Amino acid sequence: MQITILGGGGFLGRRLAHRLAKDGALGDRAITGLTLFDLQAPPPVEAPFPVRCLGGNIADPAAVTAAIPAGTEVVVHLAAVVSAQAEADFDLGLTVNVHGTLAVLQACRALTQGPRASGAAPPRVVFTSSVASFSGGQDARLEDDARQLPGNSYGAEKAIGELLLQDASRKGFLDAVNIRLPTVIIRPGRPNKAASSFVSAILREPLLGLETDLPVPEEFAVWICSPRRAVEWFLHAMTMDTKPLGLDRGINPPGRSATVGKMLSALEAVAGPEARAKVRHAPDPAIEAIVGTWPASFTAERARRLLGFSEQESLEEIVQGFIEDDLAATRAERGL
Amino acid sequence: MQITILGGGGFLGRRLAHRLAKDGALGDRAITGLTLFDLQAPPPVEAPFPVRCLGGNIADPAAVTAAIPAGTEVVVHLAAVVSAQAEADFDLGLTVNVHGTLAVLQACRALTQGPRASGAAPPRVVFTSSVASFSGGQDARLEDDARQLPGNSYGAEKAIGELLLQDASRKGFLDAVNIRLPTVIIRPGRPNKAASSFVSAILREPLLGLETDLPVPEEFAVWICSPRRAVEWFLHAMTMDTKPLGLDRGINPPGRSATVGKMLSALEAVAGPEARAKVRHAPDPAIEAIVGTWPASFTAERARRLLGFSEQESLEEIVQGFIEDDLAATRAERGL
Ligand SMILES: NC(=O)c1ccc[n+]([C@@H]2O[C@H](COP(=O)([O-])OP(=O)(O)OC[C@H]3O[C@@H](n4cnc5c(N)ncnc54)[C@H](O)[C@@H]3O)[C@@H](O)[C@H]2O)c1
Ligand SMILES: NC(=O)c1ccc[n+]([C@@H]2O[C@H](COP(=O)([O-])OP(=O)(O)OC[C@H]3O[C@@H](n4cnc5c(N)ncnc54)[C@H](O)[C@@H]3O)[C@@H](O)[C@H]2O)c1
Repeated sequence: MQITILGGGGFLGRRLAHRLAKDGALGDRAITGLTLFDLQAPPPVEAPFPVRCLGGNIADPAAVTAAIPAGTEVVVHLAAVVSAQAEADFDLGLTVNVHGTLAVLQACRALTQGPRASGAAPPRVVFTSSVASFSGGQDARLEDDARQLPGNSYGAEKAIGELLLQDASRKGFLDAVNIRLPTVIIRPGRPNKAASSFVSAILREPLLGLETDLPVPEEFAVWICSPRRAVEWFLHAMTMDTKPLGLDRGINPPGRSATVGKMLSALEAVAGPEARAKVRHAPDPAIEAIVGTWPASFTAERARRLLGFSEQESLEEIVQGFIEDDLAATRAERGL
Repeated sequence: MQITILGGGGFLGRRLAHRLAKDGALGDRAITGLTLFDLQAPPPVEAPFPVRCLGGNIADPAAVTAAIPAGTEVVVHLAAVVSAQAEADFDLGLTVNVHGTLAVLQACRALTQGPRASGAAPPRVVFTSSVASFSGGQDARLEDDARQLPGNSYGAEKAIGELLLQDASRKGFLDAVNIRLPTVIIRPGRPNKAASSFVSAILREPLLGLETDLPVPEEFAVWICSPRRAVEWFLHAMTMDTKPLGLDRGINPPGRSATVGKMLSALEAVAGPEARAKVRHAPDPAIEAIVGTWPASFTAERARRLLGFSEQESLEEIVQGFIEDDLAATRAERGL
């Protein structure tokens, strides 16, 4: 089985690539090739199968076509401009998040339609949409059929990407699973341009011994998942039976609703009160204006009961998971 | 006040242009210029203000920019590839309905941002989305916050257009009102490529003395409005206060849910049993598969109570309205 990860040099893309390399197989089928595609060619990954690392722009149809060669059965489309950046640069967000997803659609479609067609089944496409495509805010607990009314350009572009891939699935051009990811914590490395960057920072920076700012009150609730869980969901979405999805390719996976206060308590339980003491209250209305519109909770019934997506582990396990998986590498990367 | 109608050579665009020419004003402000834009330059309209008629492709940014000159205060964006055609030609639907709407967004944005900017308020954009952007089918009665889960490419493209213009409104690039039009009956002229073409045909063709096919059962219900009502809604949307809309620029206007049987009874009441006898039952599963997913009813509370959209008139009045407004011209056009 041949797999492509678009945005394969990013946080979740690299993690998924390493997992596929370790497993050597997806479900009960051996992996025969992996393509990692990102703006800059991602660093190579040791694997029992050939790995191609390509650099290119997701909004460039030729580059995306090269990244999805004939015989590709699964495409994981993670390439995106994140929330605060898409808000600051409207055109960049449109180019990467909308035109990029259109290029993915057309490259996948060409595998089974037109001159490059091989007679194979339409490729599975796992697309990462986001909780940011919804409104509702702190008091919301959204049902599975909740309307996407985005309060930010990134969320609008993700909702558009879902509509495109959902319609392409109905047409038989590809076979999409659109996962609306919660805020993934704890993100390793440095703070990034996502408005939700602080949700990871308030746990990661203290574990590195560094002070950090909390821009929202401790009662502020966030819909979260761990990187371990996100990778499990990707593996499930890459192989699951999509017939039960019908027309509706959008999935709210079973994340966890947690207040910042509860996250800090988990930090304290794992790393002691001195870790928690590194977090300074520094209200930031600009950040709160963006993340404050995202819903803090979902019922996620369909993903849980019908579709077999696994449950999110506890906050303590998330903190522990970061220490096991990422703390040393993050220290090294940041020269700490 | 300067106004542009994109798709100004179509059914509703021409009707709106004639109405503006007759009124000479929009609300309490005189109209100082009107641009009609369509694939072929629309025929000129007699008016107390200058009318420019331009031909061009809505997916061509330069052509759209020319159609929306500096000083434009209201843009009515009606240019579209309709349902059955967008379903038959996926790329054409994407080009016209998605890239076209993106070109409209950028041309409007350039009026108040960047080098062409005049310091004026963001232009009002009235965009015609469609009932086809929803699912639900015959038994549905959709609330105002119902999710758009389109079962056809046209509906997906309309939902995408809404998301784009809604986000552009939030950013202050323009000021959109996205009206999800019901099926507009009675469409004059000839049958067209909309899957809903029959809903007009079963009334229009008998009034012309012609036989016609009914592809669905008489119990089949459709969410409809008249062309007179659509024009009233456009005039309202062109001038209304958009503050009460907030983030949510999508409007389900107060159409009417009617079964085909009730429409045929209205035909009979106005034009006699010999008119109704011209309608032959000829089930067409392909047509029913498309229109069968569209919801047959909406509550339309927000449009009615909060936003001041006027109520749809009765079925008899719709039939009568066609006879008054369109029967003679349709006869002439078709050489009957
Ligand atoms: N991490 C989260 O909390 C979270 C939450 C919701 C959704 N998501 C979505 O999940 C996906 C993966 O998230 P992540 O945290 O790994 O993000 P990331 O930013 O670490 O990775 C995204 C990758 O896309 C690449 N990219 C950006 N523009 C590109 C372009 N023009 N061409 C090619 N590649 C380009 C970036 O270089 C980056 O490596 C993204 O689509 C993101 O929007 C993430
Ligand atoms: N009439 C209905 O029942 C109905 C229902 C729901 C929504 N709508 C929407 O309302 C709008 C107006 O409807 P209508 O009945 O007047 O449609 P219409 O087809 O009569 O008019 C649309 C116009 O767009 C023009 N057009 C198509 N492609 C173009 C392109 N590439 N560049 C420039 N112009 C192009 C066509 O030439 C046509 O004149 C459309 O957007 C339609 O999707 C109509």
